[in-house]
Amino acid sequence: MQPLVFTLARIENLMHQVSFDPAGMKGKIITNTTTVRKEALDETLAVFYDTINSGLAVSPMIKVIEGKGRIKIKTACSLTLCAVMLKHGIPVHPKGGGLVEVVEREPTRFTDMLMYWATTVDPIDVLTAQGLMNITGMMRTGNGRILGNLHEAPMLARDKIEDVLEALAQAGFAGVLELGQPNMNVLGVSVERDHVGLALVGGTNLMAAAKECQIDVMHESISDLTDISELKHIEELL
Amino acid sequence: MQPLVFTLARIENLMHQVSFDPAGMKGKIITNTTTVRKEALDETLAVFYDTINSGLAVSPMIKVIEGKGRIKIKTACSLTLCAVMLKHGIPVHPKGGGLVEVVEREPTRFTDMLMYWATTVDPIDVLTAQGLMNITGMMRTGNGRILGNLHEAPMLARDKIEDVLEALAQAGFAGVLELGQPNMNVLGVSVERDHVGLALVGGTNLMAAAKECQIDVMHESISDLTDISELKHIEELL
Repeated sequence: MQPLVFTLARIENLMHQVSFDPAGMKGKIITNTTTVRKEALDETLAVFYDTINSGLAVSPMIKVIEGKGRIKIKTACSLTLCAVMLKHGIPVHPKGGGLVEVVEREPTRFTDMLMYWATTVDPIDVLTAQGLMNITGMMRTGNGRILGNLHEAPMLARDKIEDVLEALAQAGFAGVLELGQPNMNVLGVSVERDHVGLALVGGTNLMAAAKECQIDVMHESISDLTDISELKHIEELL
Repeated sequence: MQPLVFTLARIENLMHQVSFDPAGMKGKIITNTTTVRKEALDETLAVFYDTINSGLAVSPMIKVIEGKGRIKIKTACSLTLCAVMLKHGIPVHPKGGGLVEVVEREPTRFTDMLMYWATTVDPIDVLTAQGLMNITGMMRTGNGRILGNLHEAPMLARDKIEDVLEALAQAGFAGVLELGQPNMNVLGVSVERDHVGLALVGGTNLMAAAKECQIDVMHESISDLTDISELKHIEELL
């Protein structure tokens, strides 16, 4: 008999196995898996490319795995950023996934949120199934709803968080929507006392954008670990 | 700008307005709303009737509201039971909604769970959208997955809970899957120290069963309050 596994347990299990070193571009990152039919690969990569260029993904590095009829695409999950902070000794806690309303290209607030420690169903699965996003709308007009997630860390770690985020950005790993000030709300969500909140774009915006473009995709978010050496820049694959 | 509203806030807002007195069959209960096309009403009521007779609903009392083309059906929400306990002075706390695996007509465990205080998207909406239930299978074979929910109360209130549940059962309001012993798991989910857990069938099994029968239904769970005097026994409506 399988016990109930809440999403946070799955996340922390993967986080502790991450070995990514952004300076050396070595080690394992957390990846999401998108599965498409062979015929849809080119269109999917084109949508991914646009979405990455709109700043709605974590990294331009992807891995394409050819199979019979179906193709799997591994893309970076935003929890990789948290895992790297953790490996630098920052006690960062993933709180939840949700939808972020964007107005004139500015993220304004979370409109929906599911806490990781309180759901056995992946929040991203929930939100994509509900069809509440409007990622392509955001890309076209600057207004829409994108997938994002929220994390917390002790406020004294804020400088160190900035350093690690800077090192990650150098390695092409980005997607910070907001790093809050101590004890201040982040995109309308309160954080614990003496903590800072960090909102990141969901790596799953890629897959969700493909879905919005009527591409028949299956996806598994926060699915596994992939060594960065196996990933290529999407421009090499178009 | 609308603030984030977690499901528990919506629930407690309705709970405090419940005035149902089971002995006198008077007052307001919490209801779910199912909307169907006029042509589908008879089939929907037939599925509801079977589901109620299989013990998968809270009450056989329903209200049919005729509209142009579309018909709304109000059915009892299981949170009505919690609200009546609350009105009897029992500090009962709705914890979450989930899926319960049933084996040979015995509920065995929760296989999925979303905590009410940690999600802005209704757990029932989540689970029905994921298509993880198998309610009609349970009705046919005794094995399947049904919607259920979990509540907690202080262990010293256990006798009073039994009394209130008995009074509710006399009034035709049932659906207890398990009332746990102090500090003991309920269907595989742990409860807080010095508390008892109470698992109830989700009133939304009715709507979910109709969906499984390919009836085109829209639904809003934990939607509003309805006076019991406006509801009729489903047998009068078939």
